[in-house]
Amino acid sequence: MKRFVDLADFTRGEVQDLVALAQRLEHHPEPRSLAGKVLGLLFMNPSLRTLASFQSGMARLGGSSFVITPGQGTWQLEARDGAVMTGAAAEHIREGLPVLASYCDALGIRAFAAGEDLAADLADERFNAMAALVDRPLINMESAINHPCQALADWKTLDELPGPARRKFVLAWVSHPKSLPLAVPAATVHMAALRGMDVVVLRPEGFALPTTVMERARQAAAASGGSVAETANRAAALEGAQVVYAKEWGCTSHYGDEAADRELRRPLKNWCLRNDWFARAADDCRVMHCLPVRRNSAIADEVLDGPRSLVLRQAFNRLPAQMAVLHRLLRP
Amino acid sequence: MKRFVDLADFTRGEVQDLVALAQRLEHHPEPRSLAGKVLGLLFMNPSLRTLASFQSGMARLGGSSFVITPGQGTWQLEARDGAVMTGAAAEHIREGLPVLASYCDALGIRAFAAGEDLAADLADERFNAMAALVDRPLINMESAINHPCQALADWKTLDELPGPARRKFVLAWVSHPKSLPLAVPAATVHMAALRGMDVVVLRPEGFALPTTVMERARQAAAASGGSVAETANRAAALEGAQVVYAKEWGCTSHYGDEAADRELRRPLKNWCLRNDWFARAADDCRVMHCLPVRRNSAIADEVLDGPRSLVLRQAFNRLPAQMAVLHRLLRP
Amino acid sequence: MKRFVDLADFTRGEVQDLVALAQRLEHHPEPRSLAGKVLGLLFMNPSLRTLASFQSGMARLGGSSFVITPGQGTWQLEARDGAVMTGAAAEHIREGLPVLASYCDALGIRAFAAGEDLAADLADERFNAMAALVDRPLINMESAINHPCQALADWKTLDELPGPARRKFVLAWVSHPKSLPLAVPAATVHMAALRGMDVVVLRPEGFALPTTVMERARQAAAASGGSVAETANRAAALEGAQVVYAKEWGCTSHYGDEAADRELRRPLKNWCLRNDWFARAADDCRVMHCLPVRRNSAIADEVLDGPRSLVLRQAFNRLPAQMAVLHRLLRP
Repeated sequence: MKRFVDLADFTRGEVQDLVALAQRLEHHPEPRSLAGKVLGLLFMNPSLRTLASFQSGMARLGGSSFVITPGQGTWQLEARDGAVMTGAAAEHIREGLPVLASYCDALGIRAFAAGEDLAADLADERFNAMAALVDRPLINMESAINHPCQALADWKTLDELPGPARRKFVLAWVSHPKSLPLAVPAATVHMAALRGMDVVVLRPEGFALPTTVMERARQAAAASGGSVAETANRAAALEGAQVVYAKEWGCTSHYGDEAADRELRRPLKNWCLRNDWFARAADDCRVMHCLPVRRNSAIADEVLDGPRSLVLRQAFNRLPAQMAVLHRLLRP
Repeated sequence: MKRFVDLADFTRGEVQDLVALAQRLEHHPEPRSLAGKVLGLLFMNPSLRTLASFQSGMARLGGSSFVITPGQGTWQLEARDGAVMTGAAAEHIREGLPVLASYCDALGIRAFAAGEDLAADLADERFNAMAALVDRPLINMESAINHPCQALADWKTLDELPGPARRKFVLAWVSHPKSLPLAVPAATVHMAALRGMDVVVLRPEGFALPTTVMERARQAAAASGGSVAETANRAAALEGAQVVYAKEWGCTSHYGDEAADRELRRPLKNWCLRNDWFARAADDCRVMHCLPVRRNSAIADEVLDGPRSLVLRQAFNRLPAQMAVLHRLLRP
Repeated sequence: MKRFVDLADFTRGEVQDLVALAQRLEHHPEPRSLAGKVLGLLFMNPSLRTLASFQSGMARLGGSSFVITPGQGTWQLEARDGAVMTGAAAEHIREGLPVLASYCDALGIRAFAAGEDLAADLADERFNAMAALVDRPLINMESAINHPCQALADWKTLDELPGPARRKFVLAWVSHPKSLPLAVPAATVHMAALRGMDVVVLRPEGFALPTTVMERARQAAAASGGSVAETANRAAALEGAQVVYAKEWGCTSHYGDEAADRELRRPLKNWCLRNDWFARAADDCRVMHCLPVRRNSAIADEVLDGPRSLVLRQAFNRLPAQMAVLHRLLRP
C-alpha cells in the first residue's frame, strides 16, 4: 500500500482486511513495530480528533510524528501555478510539500475545500496538487471531497454492531449555522454503498449531493449488492432505518454562494435530529456523526446522550483505523 | 493512584512518597518505564513550563505526548449543558473530552478560572465539568482554584532547603498590572499548611483569600501541627519569615469586577518584593514564585537575581514532580 | 562540542568531519543513539523546515523534542535588562531560558533580527542574551546574523556536486516584496569562503553586506585559499559562475528604515533570477536558495523547475546535517 487517499481505491475485501488489522492492533499492541519511523502531519485546516489520533497512533506503534500548521507558526503556502508571489504566502507548495515529505517516512495532509468552485472541489484540485508533489506514503486527512480515515473508522464501527448486517442506512442532512464541506457526506455515502447497504440520502431541496458523488456511490453499491437513493421526504427516508448518519453540508444548488446558502438554510432549523425522528425507524436504530457536532443545532442532547448514539465509538475508532493504515504504509 | 487533581486528596505521607519518587527519578532515570504510553495534554489556556515539562517528563520516561490547544489550530469547546450551539464553539466538552481521553493513557487538563463568579470558580466548575467526562488517569495542570503540580514541585523545593524544617512561611501578595487567578495562592497556602508550617497570608485590603480557601488550609494545618493567619501588615508578616512566596492575584472583595480591581491595585505599586522587605526576616529567608513573574512589577531584579531566589529550582522541580505523578498514574 | 551557534567556531576540518557524520547518519541510521534524550525547540519566529527537520532528526536518532512558540500558546518574552514589566510580556528571558534549558538535554533557539539597529543585529545581541542564560548544549536555529544549520546543510550540498571542486560562487541578491534579515547571506558568504571558493557578492547599490560580515568572510577565505569580492555588476559577477546562491535581504545603507528600503527596492523588480542570467555562466552552473522562496519574485519558475536547481536537496540536507549536530552534542 503506497497511499491512503480514497476508500474507493480499495476493494471491499481490502477494506475488510484493513478493518481486521485495526481490530488486531486495538487488542494486541505492537509498541515497537514502527520504531524509528517519522510521520509528518500537515494541517492546512484545524483539527482535534485527527491530530490527536494520528499522533497517538504513531506513538503507540513506536514511531514519532511532527505537526506543521501553515499560517500558525509557519507561513502560508501558495498553490497556484505561475503565481508571482508578492503577497502573503511566503512559500509555494512546489517547495513546501517535497521538502516536508523528505523529512518523514509518511505524510498526512489535511486540505479542506476552497468552497468556491464545485467542479474544482469535486476534482479535489487542492489536495491533489499537493499530493502530486509527495513521493512518500501519503494519507488523506480530509480533503475537499474525501475523508477516508473517517470512512474506515465508521466501517469498523458498523462492523461492531450486534445482530445481522445492517441494511437501511440513512445519511441525513442536519442544520448548521453555516455551510460546511462535502467531504464527509461524499465519503460516507460511498462507504455505506461499498458495504452493500441500502443507502438513502435525506436532504432538503438545494442540498442534493453532486451527481458525481451519487454516481460513484451507485457504482460501489452495484458491485456490493446495495442501493443508493435520495429524497427530501423525511418520513419516507426514516421508515425502517437501521442507521442514521447525521451530517451538515452546504447548499449545492448555489455552491459557494454564502448569501444563497444562508437563505436556503434559514427555514431549516427544524432539521435537528431529535428522538421523534425515530418514530418509525427500527427499534435498535443507531445514530452516527463524525464530530465535531453542534449540540441542539445539528443533533439534540436527547439523541447524543441516549442509547442510539455511536459518536464516541466512531471517534475512538479513528485511532485503531489509522494505526492500521500507518502499519500497512510503513511496516516493511 | 487514579487522578492527580488536588494535593488535598492525599495525606502528608502520600505526598512525601510522591516527592521521594520525584527525587529518585531525578537521579535515577527510568527511560523505558512508560514505553508505549501516550499522554494527552489539553490546554484551554497558555503554557510554557507546564507544556515543556510534561512533554519532556513523559519522553524521559519513554512515553509520548500530544498537545491540543482549542481555539488555536482547533475549534473552541462549549461547556454549558443544554447549549444551542450556533455560536463560535464547534464542539462540546461532552464529545471533546471523552474522545481525547480515548486516544491516550492519561490526560492533563489546564482550564483557568472564568473569573466572573467566585462561587463557581471556588467550586472549580469548569475543570470539574471536564474532569467528570474523563475515564482515564487525569492530571490537573492548573484549574480555577488549584495547581497541584506546582504545589508538589514547591514541596520538593522546600524539602531541599538545608537546615531545620522551615517554620514561618509568608504568602505575599505582589503587584501585577491586572487581575490574576486564585489557583496558585490557594494551592500554596494549603501546601504549606499541610507541611505543618506557620503560614501567614500577607495581602492588602480587598485581596483576602476566600474563606473556603483559608478554612481548607486551616484544616490541613490542624492535622499537621501548623497554623494559618492573614494580615495586611507587612512588617508583622515578614518579621522572622523563613520563606516568602510572592504571588499576584485579583481582588476578592469585588471578584470579577475589573474596574474595581483596577482601582484597588492602583495605589499598590509598592507591593513589589524588594530587598528592604527582608530587613527583619530570617537571615537565610528564601524567595519563591511559581513563574512567570513580571520583573520590577511583582519582584525586583535585586531579589530575583540575588541569593534568596528559589524560582528557577521551583520551575525545574516541575519536571521530576510531574514525572513522579506520571509514573504513579501509568506504571502498571 | 558544547554549542553549535556559528560555523566560524569550527575549523574547515571540523566542518568536514560534521559533514562526514551527516553523510554517515543519512545512509546508516542510528535509531537508538539518542534514546531518552530531549531536545527543546524555542521559536521566537516562524519556521517550517527547521521545526520539521529538527523534530524528525531527533526522532530518527531515538530522542524526543518539544516546541515552544512564545506569543502563540505561550506568553511573549521580555529581553531588556531592568525592564519594569507592566506591558505585554509576561515573562523575562532571565527566567524563561534557564527554565526551558533545565527541561531538556539540548536547546535550539530561533531569534531573528529586530531589524532596527544594525550594530545590535551584527552583534547578535538578542540571540546572545538568550544564549548566555543557557547552560546546556545549544543550537542556533537562525539568529539576527547567523544560520549555521543552513550553512552546514549547504556545505554538504556543495560537497555532493560532481566534478572538480567548484570555484566561482556568486551570492546574488534577488527581489522580495519587503526587507529580510541578513542571517543567511552572512552565513553563506562565510561558508563559501571557508570552503576556499572564489566568492562574489552581487547586489544592487544600497544592499552591500556590512563591513564586518565581509571582513569575516575575507579572513576565512584567506585561510582557505579562496577570495571574497563584491559588485553591483551582474554581468561581471555571473561570468563563469559555477554556483549562484540567490538570497533576499534588506537595504543596509538605511538599515531599519522601511520607507527607504521600499524606495530602494522599487526599481529592482528585475532582480528575479531567470534563465537569461546564466548566458555566460558555466554550463553546469547550479542554483541554490535556503527557502522559503517567492516564485517569480525572487526566482522564476523556469529556474526553480529546471535542472540547475539544488533547493530541494539543500532543504533535505538540513535533516542529516542537524542529526550530525545533535549526535555530536548529545552522544556521550
